[in-house]
Amino acid sequence: MAVYTEVSDTDLETFLDGYDLGRLLTFKGIAEGVENSNFFVHTQSGFYILTLYEKRVAAEELPYFIGLMEHLAKHGLNCPLPVKARSGDMLGKLAGRPAAIVTFLEGVSSRKPSAAQCAALGDALARLHRAGADFSGRRTNALSLAAWPGLYRQAGSRAESVQPGLSDFIAKELDFLEKHWPKDLPHGVIHADLFPDNVLFLGDKGSGLIDFYFACNDFLAYDLAVCLNSWCFEPDMSFNITKAIALINAYETTRRLEENEIAALPVLVRGAALRFVLTRLVDWLNVPSGALVKPKDPLDYVKRLRFHQRVTGARELGLMR
Amino acid sequence: MAVYTEVSDTDLETFLDGYDLGRLLTFKGIAEGVENSNFFVHTQSGFYILTLYEKRVAAEELPYFIGLMEHLAKHGLNCPLPVKARSGDMLGKLAGRPAAIVTFLEGVSSRKPSAAQCAALGDALARLHRAGADFSGRRTNALSLAAWPGLYRQAGSRAESVQPGLSDFIAKELDFLEKHWPKDLPHGVIHADLFPDNVLFLGDKGSGLIDFYFACNDFLAYDLAVCLNSWCFEPDMSFNITKAIALINAYETTRRLEENEIAALPVLVRGAALRFVLTRLVDWLNVPSGALVKPKDPLDYVKRLRFHQRVTGARELGLMR
Repeated sequence: MAVYTEVSDTDLETFLDGYDLGRLLTFKGIAEGVENSNFFVHTQSGFYILTLYEKRVAAEELPYFIGLMEHLAKHGLNCPLPVKARSGDMLGKLAGRPAAIVTFLEGVSSRKPSAAQCAALGDALARLHRAGADFSGRRTNALSLAAWPGLYRQAGSRAESVQPGLSDFIAKELDFLEKHWPKDLPHGVIHADLFPDNVLFLGDKGSGLIDFYFACNDFLAYDLAVCLNSWCFEPDMSFNITKAIALINAYETTRRLEENEIAALPVLVRGAALRFVLTRLVDWLNVPSGALVKPKDPLDYVKRLRFHQRVTGARELGLMR
Repeated sequence: MAVYTEVSDTDLETFLDGYDLGRLLTFKGIAEGVENSNFFVHTQSGFYILTLYEKRVAAEELPYFIGLMEHLAKHGLNCPLPVKARSGDMLGKLAGRPAAIVTFLEGVSSRKPSAAQCAALGDALARLHRAGADFSGRRTNALSLAAWPGLYRQAGSRAESVQPGLSDFIAKELDFLEKHWPKDLPHGVIHADLFPDNVLFLGDKGSGLIDFYFACNDFLAYDLAVCLNSWCFEPDMSFNITKAIALINAYETTRRLEENEIAALPVLVRGAALRFVLTRLVDWLNVPSGALVKPKDPLDYVKRLRFHQRVTGARELGLMR
C-alpha cells in the first residue's frame, strides 16, 4: 500500500490544467504499488491513475517505462496508456516528484488464480512479447544473474537468522546458475514482475496488465518462468501442473517456444525463484522496526526453488510436447 | 491512509452476491479514513465505497452511524447512502470485520478552503442539523467535556515533553471549561468532525459530507465551533474572520442561531479546540516508533486555543449581528 506523497487539490488542479482532461471530479490515494504513490483520478473526460514516482524509481528510466506502455497500448495490448499533456509530454512534475497520468483499467486481480485465469495470463504474456518486439527502448534487467551476487552479499550471514543453512543454500544455487544460465535465447521486452496482482480480470477473462516498472529487455522465456513461479504454486507450495499446462499452452498459441527455450526452462525457473528469494531476503532483513508494511516471506521462494532443483525437464513444468 | 485488512477478490465477490449490485468490475484499497479500511468499488450498477470497521470503532455503535447516514441521505443531504443487501441489512461481515457499502460521492476536499467554500460548508452544516432533527438514534458525544479529564490524565506529565508548560496550560483550561461549559443549548445530531477532508467540493460548490463516525447528539453550535476552528485559521494560525463571517452567515440562512448559542460560542470554540489538543496529544505521545503515519501536531490546536482565550464575544468570531 502506498501513498508516500500527499497532493493538494489545488496542486493537482494546476497540474491538470496542462492536460485536456476537463474538470477534476474526484481524486483518492490508492493502496497499490510498492514503489510509488498512486491516485485514482476522475475528470470530466474519464478515469485515470496518477502516479508520482518516488525515490526508488530512477528518474532517468521513466521514459523507458512510459514509452513502453504507450507502445504496447498502441499495439493493442490492454495496458495503461500514458496520457499526453498539451505540451506533448507524458511525464510532468507534481509535488516535487516526476508524475504521469495513465488510463484506468477496469478489472480485479485474482488472489488465487484459476487454471482458466492462468490460460488468460499465458495469452496476454505472449501478446506482450509480440507487441514489444519492435519497441526501440532498451533497459537491462537490473535484477538478473549479474545482480544476484551483490544481493547475496547484502544479506550476508544474516540469512542464517531467517533459516539455518540458507546462506550456504543460496551460495550453491548461485554457483549452479552462473554455470548453467543460458547465454543466447530469444529476447525482447519482458514485464519481469507479472505476479497475480499485476493482472486484471473480469471473471476469467483478462482485462489488463499493469505495473511495468520492472520491465526490461531480457530472455522472453524468463518472463514465462516468473509467471510459472508466481501463478502455478498453491499456498502449500505444491506445484499445480494443470495451471502450468494451461499457462504454457495458451502462451504457445500466440508464440511457440523454441527448442533452446524449452531446454533452458528448468534453469530459468530456478533463476526466477532465486531473484525473489534474494530481493525478499534483503527487504526482510532491512525492514524498519514498527513498520506497517509487512515484507514478503523469502522462504516461500526457497520452497519453490527446492521444487525446481528436482526438475529434470520442461515437461515437469507443464510443457505438453 | 488506511487499509488495515486485506480483502480477496473471491471474498468480495461472495459478499457482493448478497447485494443487487451486478458484477464486480474494480476494487482498490483507498488511503482515506484513519479508523477503518476503505475500498473503492465499481460494479455494473455504479460506484461505491466499501468500509471494513476495525477495532477502534465499537461494533454496537455501527447501527447508529449507518442509520444516521441513511436518514440524512433520505432527507436530501448529500452524504453517502448505505446500500441494503437483499436481506435488508445495511451491515454485513467481510474478512472477519463488520462491513458496509455506501454510495460513492464525487468531489474533492479542499486543502485550503476559500471563503466561498466556507459559505458552502455553513449551508451544508445547517442543512445537516435540520435533516438530523427527527432522527431517532441517540449517541452521546464520547469526546466532550466529560471525556477531557481522562484524556488529560492519559497524557500526564509527558505533555511537558511536547511543550514546557503545556500540562499546566491544559489543566487551567479544563477548570475554566468545567465552570463555563453551557448546560442547555439547542441540541441534536452533530457531525463533530467536519474538517476540510470530510467535505467534498466541485469547485466552490459543496458536493457532499462524508465520514460520520464521530457523529453524536450534542449542542448544534458545538459543531459550528469545530468548523470555525478547522476551516477559518490560516496555516500561520491567524484567524481569518472573512471566512468565519461567510461560514456563520451561510449557516444562519438556513438555521438562525439563538441568543444562548451566540453567548456560548466563545466557550464552545475553546472546548472544540481543547478536544483536538487532547486527542492529538494522546496520539502524539503514543505513536509507535517507526510508524509510517505521522500524527497531527497538537500544538496547532494550542495556538487556536490561545487565540480564543482572548476573544470576548461572538462578533470576534464572525457573527455579524
